[in-house]
Amino acid sequence: MTIQIKTELCAMFNIRYPLFLAGMAGGMTTVELVAAVSNAGGLGTLGAAYLEPTAIREAILEIRKLTDKPFAVNLFASRASDNNERIREVQQALNPMRRKLGMASVVGEDVATSNLFEEQIAVLIGEKVPVISTAFGILPEPFMRQAKKAKLLVVTMVTTVREALLAEQAGCDAIVAQGSEAGGHRGTFDITEHRMGANIGTFALVPQIVDQVKIPVIAAGGIMDGRGLVASLVLGAQGVQMGTRFLTAIESGAHDAYKQALLNSTEESTVLTKGFSGRPARGIQNGFIREWDASGVEPLPFPTQNTVTRDIRNAANRQSNPDYMSLWAGQGTRLLTSEQSAEDIVDETIRQALLICDE
Amino acid sequence: MTIQIKTELCAMFNIRYPLFLAGMAGGMTTVELVAAVSNAGGLGTLGAAYLEPTAIREAILEIRKLTDKPFAVNLFASRASDNNERIREVQQALNPMRRKLGMASVVGEDVATSNLFEEQIAVLIGEKVPVISTAFGILPEPFMRQAKKAKLLVVTMVTTVREALLAEQAGCDAIVAQGSEAGGHRGTFDITEHRMGANIGTFALVPQIVDQVKIPVIAAGGIMDGRGLVASLVLGAQGVQMGTRFLTAIESGAHDAYKQALLNSTEESTVLTKGFSGRPARGIQNGFIREWDASGVEPLPFPTQNTVTRDIRNAANRQSNPDYMSLWAGQGTRLLTSEQSAEDIVDETIRQALLICDE
Repeated sequence: MTIQIKTELCAMFNIRYPLFLAGMAGGMTTVELVAAVSNAGGLGTLGAAYLEPTAIREAILEIRKLTDKPFAVNLFASRASDNNERIREVQQALNPMRRKLGMASVVGEDVATSNLFEEQIAVLIGEKVPVISTAFGILPEPFMRQAKKAKLLVVTMVTTVREALLAEQAGCDAIVAQGSEAGGHRGTFDITEHRMGANIGTFALVPQIVDQVKIPVIAAGGIMDGRGLVASLVLGAQGVQMGTRFLTAIESGAHDAYKQALLNSTEESTVLTKGFSGRPARGIQNGFIREWDASGVEPLPFPTQNTVTRDIRNAANRQSNPDYMSLWAGQGTRLLTSEQSAEDIVDETIRQALLICDE
Repeated sequence: MTIQIKTELCAMFNIRYPLFLAGMAGGMTTVELVAAVSNAGGLGTLGAAYLEPTAIREAILEIRKLTDKPFAVNLFASRASDNNERIREVQQALNPMRRKLGMASVVGEDVATSNLFEEQIAVLIGEKVPVISTAFGILPEPFMRQAKKAKLLVVTMVTTVREALLAEQAGCDAIVAQGSEAGGHRGTFDITEHRMGANIGTFALVPQIVDQVKIPVIAAGGIMDGRGLVASLVLGAQGVQMGTRFLTAIESGAHDAYKQALLNSTEESTVLTKGFSGRPARGIQNGFIREWDASGVEPLPFPTQNTVTRDIRNAANRQSNPDYMSLWAGQGTRLLTSEQSAEDIVDETIRQALLICDE
């Protein structure tokens, strides 16, 4: 076959295999998971979107203690500020869930979400993180210029051809083409254009983007094993990004109840919801999503909705109650494995891919 | 590469290439298109769901004049009867569109959709159509037994692993795994379970089904060229079904205005709607869909909604007004070509696939 596992992407990113760990925010990508994927020959990614700048710096130092290989740090390139209109209505819709979790009701004072993006990105550039990846938009100038000056690679997640062209024009070194199968937040830049995000299946999205851009494309969404890796390369991608598959890895930071929900789920289990954060994201249907939808209330925009639901998600985590956690997951969860180390997952994926390619 | 274009499916169906034409209903699959795909080495499929039994028999005779190769006829395996509750409300929501098309308003008498399925299937078995394929459900007993007795191959479209297992248990010879990228109607068996259909991306759906069934799986949804064919085989499918790609073929029965809308569309152009037929289907967003959604009226169940909107779609076709046609399309329309014969499309797809596989 003309398909080779070792793509130009590997040389460009100085990695052995074209396999990226998705930068899943919210503590899933522990420093151990990030380092394990990089040590196994892929590119580990720290999901730092919700981390304080000091915590990001500490994590970067930890990762560097665990690996001398390249790794990435992912941020949400969003400068959206809070919108507290209707916050009382939203808090009232959330209070029945709080009661179920034994929490006090919240009346609805305005919330103020600190936008850490500029401080976060300053840490990444200051620490010379090998790869900076963003979701929700492109790394803004002048940060792009600073990153280039520091010889850091910049990757942006895109969900349409238009977004891919914008990322290429802005100077990104590569793009992640996120298909609708993907778990977690949609990378959609402007959700006023696509209320629930642009949800193009990976199979349709990858070749259409590959035909329009010159920079390498990394396929994401529903990719769970070596078959998915080779199929992505056949469609013209130079690599893959896998998130869900690593959520059940031994090093994953996912709560045990979350891991169990993933292992019990099927391709029919997930839905797209804006209820947790105000931005569309794919997760396993649970009590939170059902009750939020039943309320008929429109979520506040990101990041405000995310801020007002945090206490519920935190309580659910403390109580090991998956019904009120955000159970982000893609559509390929029947292919999940348990009790596997990240290294085993990378090895198994690459072995299977090499077999298919007869290498 | 261990991937071979000539799969067991080719021997089973006595075709040269594992490429099926989707059985697109509504006059898209002309007898010329069906025969051309079969003559080119694929499996042509007549979309006969809306055809009178006599018209199906005539079409089968025509196809047999044009090719001695195997072909399929596709039907909707739905025995749903009309539901006229709320028909006045629905007709009132449709009347503004009728006015725009210069049509008289409709008050809202009950409609009676003749369920032709049993007569249609009798023609297929009587004429010994080589392949019977169904959407919306499995060929019911005793038809399945009759088809087997007549040595006809039976294929069912599925959208989930559960549906795939039901089809295998019912004795289907192969299944079409329809990913969310696909254009036209979702094959979902029971839309009370998934209001807008189960929409699993092809990339996630195919390997999860392949791992669970023994019968051959044909991938569908977003497959537009040789890359899509080989990627499907890599994911474990034994063939592909392509619909949208053939809509702009010279032999396609699609209205010129429809073809133009397809060629002008992008991966962002389509939406899922129940407005045309009462069943979820993917088509290019147009005036009909926007105005129907704006009405806020819940569509009548299939087939009633399909029956009450037919006059509007027919008038739009007569007036060459794509804004009120059902512009079914998948998510891969940037890969469409124009002025190509079906034979050219099959040849180009196979040539590209063989190149990738180094055959």
